Amino acid sequence: MTRTVTIEKKILEKNDTVAARVRARFQSENLAVVNIMSSPGAGKTTLLAETVKRFSTSIRTGVIVGDIATDHDAKIIEAAGAHWVVQINTAGRCHLEAGMIEQAVAEMSKGLDLLIIENIGNLVCPAGFDLGEDYRVMLAALTEGTDKPKKYPGMYRACSHLVINKIDLESALGVSGESFEHEALQTNPKLEIFRTSAKNGDGLDRWCDWLRSVVNEKG
Amino acid sequence: MTRTVTIEKKILEKNDTVAARVRARFQSENLAVVNIMSSPGAGKTTLLAETVKRFSTSIRTGVIVGDIATDHDAKIIEAAGAHWVVQINTAGRCHLEAGMIEQAVAEMSKGLDLLIIENIGNLVCPAGFDLGEDYRVMLAALTEGTDKPKKYPGMYRACSHLVINKIDLESALGVSGESFEHEALQTNPKLEIFRTSAKNGDGLDRWCDWLRSVVNEKG
Repeated sequence: MTRTVTIEKKILEKNDTVAARVRARFQSENLAVVNIMSSPGAGKTTLLAETVKRFSTSIRTGVIVGDIATDHDAKIIEAAGAHWVVQINTAGRCHLEAGMIEQAVAEMSKGLDLLIIENIGNLVCPAGFDLGEDYRVMLAALTEGTDKPKKYPGMYRACSHLVINKIDLESALGVSGESFEHEALQTNPKLEIFRTSAKNGDGLDRWCDWLRSVVNEKG
Repeated sequence: MTRTVTIEKKILEKNDTVAARVRARFQSENLAVVNIMSSPGAGKTTLLAETVKRFSTSIRTGVIVGDIATDHDAKIIEAAGAHWVVQINTAGRCHLEAGMIEQAVAEMSKGLDLLIIENIGNLVCPAGFDLGEDYRVMLAALTEGTDKPKKYPGMYRACSHLVINKIDLESALGVSGESFEHEALQTNPKLEIFRTSAKNGDGLDRWCDWLRSVVNEKG
């Protein structure tokens, strides 16, 4: 087991070096960058498509979409009106790394205000890889069950913000967004939390207001 | 990138050697072994608890529960009446490996008919690691969206059987189990598919009948 841990450390150290370079580039362009992580099917793509629609021309938003395979999500987000979209296919790797971001932004459009990175659907490894972002956001679906914050503490602690999505299913599930929030705060008391339904629009105004404030921080 | 791929190959080769040893042990004990994989929150634990309840004394079932942290799931499955339960905490690793199974079964109860391995909630890496099992089963929740088979083809192709769970939410979601099944078969036409609600019991009889047949194959 020890040998494998050493290998992982080396990979993470290499990633940190690249991430610092990527972050410096984003800083020099005054670009706000948010890395969104979640389980498969929690609703990242729908949330991002709805976010991009609301920003329209007011905030010029770019999106990097990470997936194992397909460009399905990139097409949806492009159709929603994102100013720049690139799809990364990891061909079996379970997380994005800073080197993939560096390649992806090599030909990025100029003049973007906000770059959102949609990470691979996985609650484990993505938490370990710095991508040069300003904020890490965890997206949880209410359907996943309120035990998940305790079961995936690394992810919940790696993030400063949590979106609890699919709250439209509260009554069908018999689970409240409030109880999920309570569990999440037990794992990470510093989380700032949004409750949303990307499907019917509930809670999206507050979420978009926060993203606007992230852009404004960059001046 | 090449360097990393080489490391992964080495890890997988080492895993295959251990898996062959674990499989030989299971064969010598006529033990049927099923490896269940899914996203976080798809319902593995509830399905297994309900399965174990139904088998009661007719099929002596052991369960290995993989998690990043906590023994929450092991307690639930033990309370449901499993004959032997062991929790593996991977401390941040996103999949189970054959070496972990070998350690876990070192002190396994004698006389089990069936061993179910509940893998880490992750649709990527667990697909690559042989655990010495007879069958690999993928559990998908209807809530994840019908695009998932195309987006995680490695997992869908690594499995011979698929359980589509949470079908009680069909009307709340506006998504049918049939449409999910259709998408899954496009990625892997050989999948044998069950549709279940572990919550209300729908479809569990057919699932349990299949597990019984797996036990009977061992004679």
